[in-house]
Amino acid sequence: MSEQVGFLTMGATAEAAGPVPTIGIGMLGYAFMGKAHSNAFRTIPYMIRPLAAMPRMVALCGRNREAVTAAATRFGYEKVYLDWREMLKDDSIQLFDNGGPNNVHAEPTIAAAEAGKHVLCEKPLGRTAKESKQMLDAVRKAGVKHMCAFNYRFVPAVRQAKALLERGALGRIYHFRARYLQEWGNSPDVAQWRYHADTAGSGALGDLGAHIIDMARFLIGEPTEVSALTATFITERDDPGGAGRKHVDVDDAFEAIVRFANGAVGTLEATRFAPGRKNHNCFEINGELGSISFDLEDMNHLEVHLPGLDDKDVQGFRKVLVSESIHPFWQHWWPQGHIIGWEHTFIHEVNHLLEAIVGNHDVAPYGADFVDGYRNAVICDAIIESAREGRRVAIRYED
Amino acid sequence: MSEQVGFLTMGATAEAAGPVPTIGIGMLGYAFMGKAHSNAFRTIPYMIRPLAAMPRMVALCGRNREAVTAAATRFGYEKVYLDWREMLKDDSIQLFDNGGPNNVHAEPTIAAAEAGKHVLCEKPLGRTAKESKQMLDAVRKAGVKHMCAFNYRFVPAVRQAKALLERGALGRIYHFRARYLQEWGNSPDVAQWRYHADTAGSGALGDLGAHIIDMARFLIGEPTEVSALTATFITERDDPGGAGRKHVDVDDAFEAIVRFANGAVGTLEATRFAPGRKNHNCFEINGELGSISFDLEDMNHLEVHLPGLDDKDVQGFRKVLVSESIHPFWQHWWPQGHIIGWEHTFIHEVNHLLEAIVGNHDVAPYGADFVDGYRNAVICDAIIESAREGRRVAIRYED
Amino acid sequence: MSEQVGFLTMGATAEAAGPVPTIGIGMLGYAFMGKAHSNAFRTIPYMIRPLAAMPRMVALCGRNREAVTAAATRFGYEKVYLDWREMLKDDSIQLFDNGGPNNVHAEPTIAAAEAGKHVLCEKPLGRTAKESKQMLDAVRKAGVKHMCAFNYRFVPAVRQAKALLERGALGRIYHFRARYLQEWGNSPDVAQWRYHADTAGSGALGDLGAHIIDMARFLIGEPTEVSALTATFITERDDPGGAGRKHVDVDDAFEAIVRFANGAVGTLEATRFAPGRKNHNCFEINGELGSISFDLEDMNHLEVHLPGLDDKDVQGFRKVLVSESIHPFWQHWWPQGHIIGWEHTFIHEVNHLLEAIVGNHDVAPYGADFVDGYRNAVICDAIIESAREGRRVAIRYED
Amino acid sequence: MSEQVGFLTMGATAEAAGPVPTIGIGMLGYAFMGKAHSNAFRTIPYMIRPLAAMPRMVALCGRNREAVTAAATRFGYEKVYLDWREMLKDDSIQLFDNGGPNNVHAEPTIAAAEAGKHVLCEKPLGRTAKESKQMLDAVRKAGVKHMCAFNYRFVPAVRQAKALLERGALGRIYHFRARYLQEWGNSPDVAQWRYHADTAGSGALGDLGAHIIDMARFLIGEPTEVSALTATFITERDDPGGAGRKHVDVDDAFEAIVRFANGAVGTLEATRFAPGRKNHNCFEINGELGSISFDLEDMNHLEVHLPGLDDKDVQGFRKVLVSESIHPFWQHWWPQGHIIGWEHTFIHEVNHLLEAIVGNHDVAPYGADFVDGYRNAVICDAIIESAREGRRVAIRYED
Repeated sequence: MSEQVGFLTMGATAEAAGPVPTIGIGMLGYAFMGKAHSNAFRTIPYMIRPLAAMPRMVALCGRNREAVTAAATRFGYEKVYLDWREMLKDDSIQLFDNGGPNNVHAEPTIAAAEAGKHVLCEKPLGRTAKESKQMLDAVRKAGVKHMCAFNYRFVPAVRQAKALLERGALGRIYHFRARYLQEWGNSPDVAQWRYHADTAGSGALGDLGAHIIDMARFLIGEPTEVSALTATFITERDDPGGAGRKHVDVDDAFEAIVRFANGAVGTLEATRFAPGRKNHNCFEINGELGSISFDLEDMNHLEVHLPGLDDKDVQGFRKVLVSESIHPFWQHWWPQGHIIGWEHTFIHEVNHLLEAIVGNHDVAPYGADFVDGYRNAVICDAIIESAREGRRVAIRYED
Repeated sequence: MSEQVGFLTMGATAEAAGPVPTIGIGMLGYAFMGKAHSNAFRTIPYMIRPLAAMPRMVALCGRNREAVTAAATRFGYEKVYLDWREMLKDDSIQLFDNGGPNNVHAEPTIAAAEAGKHVLCEKPLGRTAKESKQMLDAVRKAGVKHMCAFNYRFVPAVRQAKALLERGALGRIYHFRARYLQEWGNSPDVAQWRYHADTAGSGALGDLGAHIIDMARFLIGEPTEVSALTATFITERDDPGGAGRKHVDVDDAFEAIVRFANGAVGTLEATRFAPGRKNHNCFEINGELGSISFDLEDMNHLEVHLPGLDDKDVQGFRKVLVSESIHPFWQHWWPQGHIIGWEHTFIHEVNHLLEAIVGNHDVAPYGADFVDGYRNAVICDAIIESAREGRRVAIRYED
Repeated sequence: MSEQVGFLTMGATAEAAGPVPTIGIGMLGYAFMGKAHSNAFRTIPYMIRPLAAMPRMVALCGRNREAVTAAATRFGYEKVYLDWREMLKDDSIQLFDNGGPNNVHAEPTIAAAEAGKHVLCEKPLGRTAKESKQMLDAVRKAGVKHMCAFNYRFVPAVRQAKALLERGALGRIYHFRARYLQEWGNSPDVAQWRYHADTAGSGALGDLGAHIIDMARFLIGEPTEVSALTATFITERDDPGGAGRKHVDVDDAFEAIVRFANGAVGTLEATRFAPGRKNHNCFEINGELGSISFDLEDMNHLEVHLPGLDDKDVQGFRKVLVSESIHPFWQHWWPQGHIIGWEHTFIHEVNHLLEAIVGNHDVAPYGADFVDGYRNAVICDAIIESAREGRRVAIRYED
Repeated sequence: MSEQVGFLTMGATAEAAGPVPTIGIGMLGYAFMGKAHSNAFRTIPYMIRPLAAMPRMVALCGRNREAVTAAATRFGYEKVYLDWREMLKDDSIQLFDNGGPNNVHAEPTIAAAEAGKHVLCEKPLGRTAKESKQMLDAVRKAGVKHMCAFNYRFVPAVRQAKALLERGALGRIYHFRARYLQEWGNSPDVAQWRYHADTAGSGALGDLGAHIIDMARFLIGEPTEVSALTATFITERDDPGGAGRKHVDVDDAFEAIVRFANGAVGTLEATRFAPGRKNHNCFEINGELGSISFDLEDMNHLEVHLPGLDDKDVQGFRKVLVSESIHPFWQHWWPQGHIIGWEHTFIHEVNHLLEAIVGNHDVAPYGADFVDGYRNAVICDAIIESAREGRRVAIRYED
């Protein structure tokens, strides 16, 4: 007794009341982020239920024909483009995914919006608040869906923290402290676009700091003022373009203190010079009724202190293994205790965007949109200004 | 400038010197393990490089037409079968993957081998050593590749531990202690095939204990004798078939002490009655030159104590985040510190089998084969015998 | 304005309704345990409130005149004796504290009881159950207070665990697993009385194992049967008496599995061959309603899982810093979070005995008395018998 | 065979080549710090070897006759004084120990120095840099030994960190981040002198922050500039003097970022509003060659990452149990792994001062002296100034 069944697209329809829409993807960039996003697109169809949309991996775009073809072949894109302008003319693409370096975030993304494509752009949105604002204005004007890829909002433990805050479990918030520590900058031999303002905008700030600034805004709310300093420990590296040595004109680390609109105060710090810290993206929140602590290196756990729930003599931080069907995103995965990895954040994130497109609702507040991307850039700019000027800087959004 | 590229199968050929072979998969079962294995088959083509073989998901087999069709559609199998005997006649299948309950391990697997299919069978291999031996004899006679799915050999941190042992980093081994603790048996309302000997063989022993017995054999070597006891805390549950109440005739937990051929001694323990322990599969090894400790709930870390490498006043267990390109399996994944999850063990495992098939080499010693599955069952039987008889039992393999 | 106040003895009276009694101490032995007990006697008068009795450090006894005089001078004993028989004639001594090696536990302690002294004896009580029984019979016949120094009952976190069990917080108990791991035996150069049966009775079993056996009995209740094995990894060492090489005739490690009268099952293990484990005395208890975990290397913490107290999505082991005024023994110490050390267990223990003497009540159930010491020895003997005979051994007390 | 030996004073002489000098102690204050210091004085004579001096507990001073007499009796002081001016006339006192509230630090300490007494003053030294400078000037002029009680320099793990830094194990230093979190301020019902500037100077800053500022200076070196903010979450509390409600005019928390003379940058933070953090005094240092991490709640451990010592695939933070004879201060204590507590820091600290007095050498650099106390106050003042002015403030010492 055999029976032929179809492949993925059919699969989706088989489970839903009717057929799910297909959304054509055009992707720019195929390195670290390209791999992570492509994996998400490939996994969603069979792991996420209910399935909102079937992603169709239409095209991958890059400048090197051989490399982009190899990547497209590997990840299953139907076509390659060597010029993003060409790709944006492709009618089979409804979603433009920008995974390129920071200096190619603005122009292609704006053009994509103008071409009526929904857009997903890696963080930081632009290299500056000004550039980010142009991107925000463009997507608004075009009326397309927009997401800025702050993927750590899609860690189950982080979303669980958000849920606790939303139900008032911590009461009034006093403190938020976050740090994002990595170690790879400590080697003077590393050379890449992330060390130069023309390509990257800023250094550890835009690369790592932007993530914890987003955590701060997502979990605590808007900051009102910041004081900061920056440091560059290795001031010259090989030019990533091969043109000899090049001055490092971005920060290797920044340190900031911040006050929030709700009265909380906190610290923000990021560095690429912390030996032994591989991907140490941490935060702690202290509120009137309890505290929460998180570390990305142990991302399936959330430490939670809620003394009001406990007997007096057994109070302490609980190490919650956020991996049960009642936890955020876990309906898609495994029985309790069978943990997921970093790449899963992208699966949740991209799926969130697909749902927003199909359902025609906002990416915010659980996903970061271009408003979040822009405001994040305002805060980054304020940190640089404060570090340069040696004074406290107020956070002022134009949007 | 656009260029059409093909889909997965083409993709694989594009990267290799020539085309990679396709291996057709026929899968029995579509629940927990079916989902984990299917995810592995779908991920390998674009994440594992170099790619040894392109898995073709030919058919899924189950008894309930509606359910198996839905699962096949979801995971992208081409066909469904309602009878595994029919599926084994399908010439487009080269690999039979048995993810069914323990009582359907032996017969279909033996038949598959007899039909010339390579076989991958979930653990425990058979419900008893005797049944397992029949399976081993069958695959040997058929000359097919055989793997028993002890997936924890494919945790990067476990393979790293193996590498340390292989290079003698711990010297003479004194101790191995392992426990596998879960909590879900503590609810009297849970009812399923795992509570009854006819379907499961044994309880926590075959389900969880088999994993740590495999760890013991993989890392330390053969045990020579064992003393054990078992306990069943809840002795009656609902019949999973719906026929009222049914006696629980398997262990809820076992405790064992063991001596190894190399002189090491240890403890083995598994239970489903440890509240708060979601998937606490742990071991510690103490040797003349150092110690190693592992916990599956934190599976990306390995704790390693190697005092000979340290200055005297800074000795201690190092918490190694096993997530760098130099670590086992990490060439396929992400930059350091971007951790992977439980499901990745199956990707590594299945790929290991595909490599063995294509390269025509043994699954052992890094993968577990049916010799491992059989010997594991001998030890499980010895544990039950020791628990019943109240005396130490020697481990004697017939193979 | 100055005012003369008196010294310690006066001090005690000043705070109580009336004068507190003085209890004269005669101590045998002045090495590791002698230092720990002497520190307790010196600290109690000014740190423990209310003060039950003022310990008077009357005499210290040892065979080497110079060494015992130096130790007595250091710790403030009034006299030294070179023969414990002489010391027992001293009427100013009401409490005999035996901190000598295991082979001088029985005879002096029995003689002290016969001389009407209360007795505190280091663990293990005797080298065998038989010797321990003689000691128990002697103190019973003499009607004196008797304590066996299982000091880990006096860790605040352990007493907190006891309190949780007493109030039924864990419900029915399923599992107890304990291990006591140290590393110093791994060096072949270590030579001392603890390696030889004539002086020590047993090895890691009586030295470390006795402690976790006491934890098992204190927290879970009586075991009914045990299966065990022992190992001796280094079989010859220098004679501690200087007479060349000497056979090691005690265990370097033991492994045991145990069943308790209440239906719980567990593992017990001790070794001196676990590199990196300095003083790793751990236990975990799993019950119907929760779990408890403890590690002496982090002795101010207790990990507690009580899901019934938590919201469903924030359940997990709490890391309780047992250091608040509501916690056991903490009324004597510091504001919360200002942790205490290992030596404090002796302060609590000795004070418990002084209170029992002054209040004329039993040392049990919170302190270990000679019944506990004897029963502990029965279990140790059963472990050795089981290891030798290769069969399960029932625990049978004659008292 | 009995032999009378003397009590403490004799004891000390018996072990040394000749008699050790006696140093008479006069103590002001008998609450938290009074208890901790008194315990140190009582413990040193029999636990610290070699013994530099025998502390003689001459007098305790306080305003409430009944309370001070009770405390003096308890801790074994010979006399009480109700006026510190009177006590300073007592010729049997050579060391004045000031454990009173911050507003009685300056005047009595200065008077003591003028009376030729050596001085030990609790931290913060004065309520302001100005007051602290007067104290420093006084002890310098008097030529007495002076110590400011930054006791965390005397945690073995902290001193071990210092040793690593001194031998260059971390190379160039990039980062220092420290926080000192407690929770007790979160209750609006707590009322005491620490909430008001007249008695305390500052809030969490002088109470907790001063400790981590001292750690920063001790371990990293001098800071050159700071930016800060402060917060007061509960602005009115009961007057500790009983006069109704009183405005809280000190900080409940501060946040600061700092640059050091050696180019390192960092964060400093203290709060009394972090539920679940009992005594969370932490720091982390990142340098070119490694990292160090410490947490006072687990004060016997030091986490150390020194990749240069490790094989490449087993690098990670080591959890060093700083409790072996080769570790700082451990020659006085117990076999490895038998941990000490918070109170031991005072034993080490006070003994360090006694050694400085007897040996006529400086308390610095391992102990904090009044130079350290003064500079600490300059930094505290700069933090307040920066928080008030909203600009970066340079650290400028007048000494």
